[in-house]
Amino acid sequence: MESIGDLGEFGLIRRVTGRPMAADVLLGPGDDAAVVAAPDGRVVATTDVLVEGRHFRLDWSSPYDIGRKAAAQNLADVVAMGARPTALLVGFGAPAETPAAWAQRLTDGIVEESALVGASVAGGDTVGSPTITIAVTALGDLGGAPPLTRSGARPGDVVAVRGRLGWAASGLHLLQHGLDGPAELVAAHRRPQPPYSAGQEARSLGATAMLDVSDGLLQDLGHIAERSGVAIDVTAAAVPLPPPLAASAAGRAAASRGEPPTMHQEGKTSPETAADDARTPDRLHLALTGGEDHAFAATFPAGTGLPPAWTVVGRVAEGSGVTVDGSVPAVRGWDHFRG
Amino acid sequence: MESIGDLGEFGLIRRVTGRPMAADVLLGPGDDAAVVAAPDGRVVATTDVLVEGRHFRLDWSSPYDIGRKAAAQNLADVVAMGARPTALLVGFGAPAETPAAWAQRLTDGIVEESALVGASVAGGDTVGSPTITIAVTALGDLGGAPPLTRSGARPGDVVAVRGRLGWAASGLHLLQHGLDGPAELVAAHRRPQPPYSAGQEARSLGATAMLDVSDGLLQDLGHIAERSGVAIDVTAAAVPLPPPLAASAAGRAAASRGEPPTMHQEGKTSPETAADDARTPDRLHLALTGGEDHAFAATFPAGTGLPPAWTVVGRVAEGSGVTVDGSVPAVRGWDHFRG
Repeated sequence: MESIGDLGEFGLIRRVTGRPMAADVLLGPGDDAAVVAAPDGRVVATTDVLVEGRHFRLDWSSPYDIGRKAAAQNLADVVAMGARPTALLVGFGAPAETPAAWAQRLTDGIVEESALVGASVAGGDTVGSPTITIAVTALGDLGGAPPLTRSGARPGDVVAVRGRLGWAASGLHLLQHGLDGPAELVAAHRRPQPPYSAGQEARSLGATAMLDVSDGLLQDLGHIAERSGVAIDVTAAAVPLPPPLAASAAGRAAASRGEPPTMHQEGKTSPETAADDARTPDRLHLALTGGEDHAFAATFPAGTGLPPAWTVVGRVAEGSGVTVDGSVPAVRGWDHFRG
Repeated sequence: MESIGDLGEFGLIRRVTGRPMAADVLLGPGDDAAVVAAPDGRVVATTDVLVEGRHFRLDWSSPYDIGRKAAAQNLADVVAMGARPTALLVGFGAPAETPAAWAQRLTDGIVEESALVGASVAGGDTVGSPTITIAVTALGDLGGAPPLTRSGARPGDVVAVRGRLGWAASGLHLLQHGLDGPAELVAAHRRPQPPYSAGQEARSLGATAMLDVSDGLLQDLGHIAERSGVAIDVTAAAVPLPPPLAASAAGRAAASRGEPPTMHQEGKTSPETAADDARTPDRLHLALTGGEDHAFAATFPAGTGLPPAWTVVGRVAEGSGVTVDGSVPAVRGWDHFRG
């Protein structure tokens, strides 16, 4: 079977980048650098790194899904600034014996997720590494508007979310307990579906701050609270919940394999209570702390008429920190080193 | 000792990014994405990934040197387009037990190398990984000029280089043989010194094509030949050589430690001949195939008056491929998977 080592770096670059480009890519792969349009004289830029065993597992996700996810989380960051994604750069590290077809499917996933928002892969770098690593940089265009930062929330604003909360965390929880259903939750872990139109929609609705929920709603609202110098109170009953995991008991494919979880663990689950947790997950906890769905959370002036896709989940007030129904929650979210 | 796991992701981000920004960074770290100036409505963008054991060894390079090198190779790519670097994004993966001071020194190196060209670190991502991995993206501004690509070389042009050839490869060769001198060569491996002003200089001199020499002069000239649809002949006697390695015999600090080389190997050196190689390296071979000095190679119309820092090393002709004194060379350079 052909490996990426057989192809060599330049063969791989040719293979994975020989694709049509959007008009924003003025000079695509094959030179020292790409040239990308930045029509209003500014460029939005963000980078995220995904590591095998930490952000994905090869036995749980296909290379295509991993590519979709790697692109999605970076595209969501651009969208959360109120910007339109234009191009991606992809750094890829993998062992030389990695099948070329694996890298091709990864790239297919990246390219197809990017196409959802009209962005292209404009360049990249491929290197040998013992650990499969995907470093994606996404660029975007603000179209003349100011960036929608985390620092503009004001006391009196409402906090609203658009997109899924706790779905990806539910799917991961199921996989960690050897379950492969409900399928929609497992799929949500493998491939997030950020509602990309939310970014420019929020901007046009007059949002004062926005971010994408990558580390959990409470933790990410904490970033808005900190940078805006405000307090945020979340109303638990208003938070949209993921579908129940209980139905999955019937779909249990196999007992937990006894493998130590290598990724995001919810709270302080101990091995002894894992089976109970699989039957009785706390959906509110998952919705408040689960990351990786890449929903968008934004603050709007009170009285803003929000379309139905947005759910008001809280209020901005004077002060600091994030509370739930007025109390400080015990658990907030995921830290990439502490998780 | 404080580790990056103790700090946590957000503490690390704060620690490594609380630095003054250049004016090009309109919105720096701490939001979903950075916003960087792109004055002429375009942005140059490139990404490179460095992996422990492949692009650097922890026992051969300090974190500060690794940071300098990681920044340098990306900045050189921007400069090789004729652009001015504006900002960097840094993806960093490392084990949680990595000392916080190590990450701080790495960042110092990245920031200080960037400062040489007036660029700032505008954002990044830090994640847990078993393999220390540094993914740098550099952005740049073309100042209204067309990008200096690899595809503009024309028959009749001269090929000229500015910067060091074979120095970094010489230093790596010495380290692989347990030698720590000559110091200037070992230092050249640890920390390349691209002549950054060469990019805009070449543009103002009317260069027709340019790139930075990252994989070896012959291999990189091959990219110009291929993309320009021309042949390039290099005159061996004109190629600037690195300083001799022979003096290093006196400075031999220790015998080779018997460790298998884990990085770029020159040619097909076998263990049996390693000692001989250390005494009698082929400086021309090193200059023609050694990468990582990030010299700049450019083509200019015949008769262009080149400043003394540029050395004419060859000619562009009709045809294809790269030759040395009219013959096809046996070895070209480094492939990141095959190296």
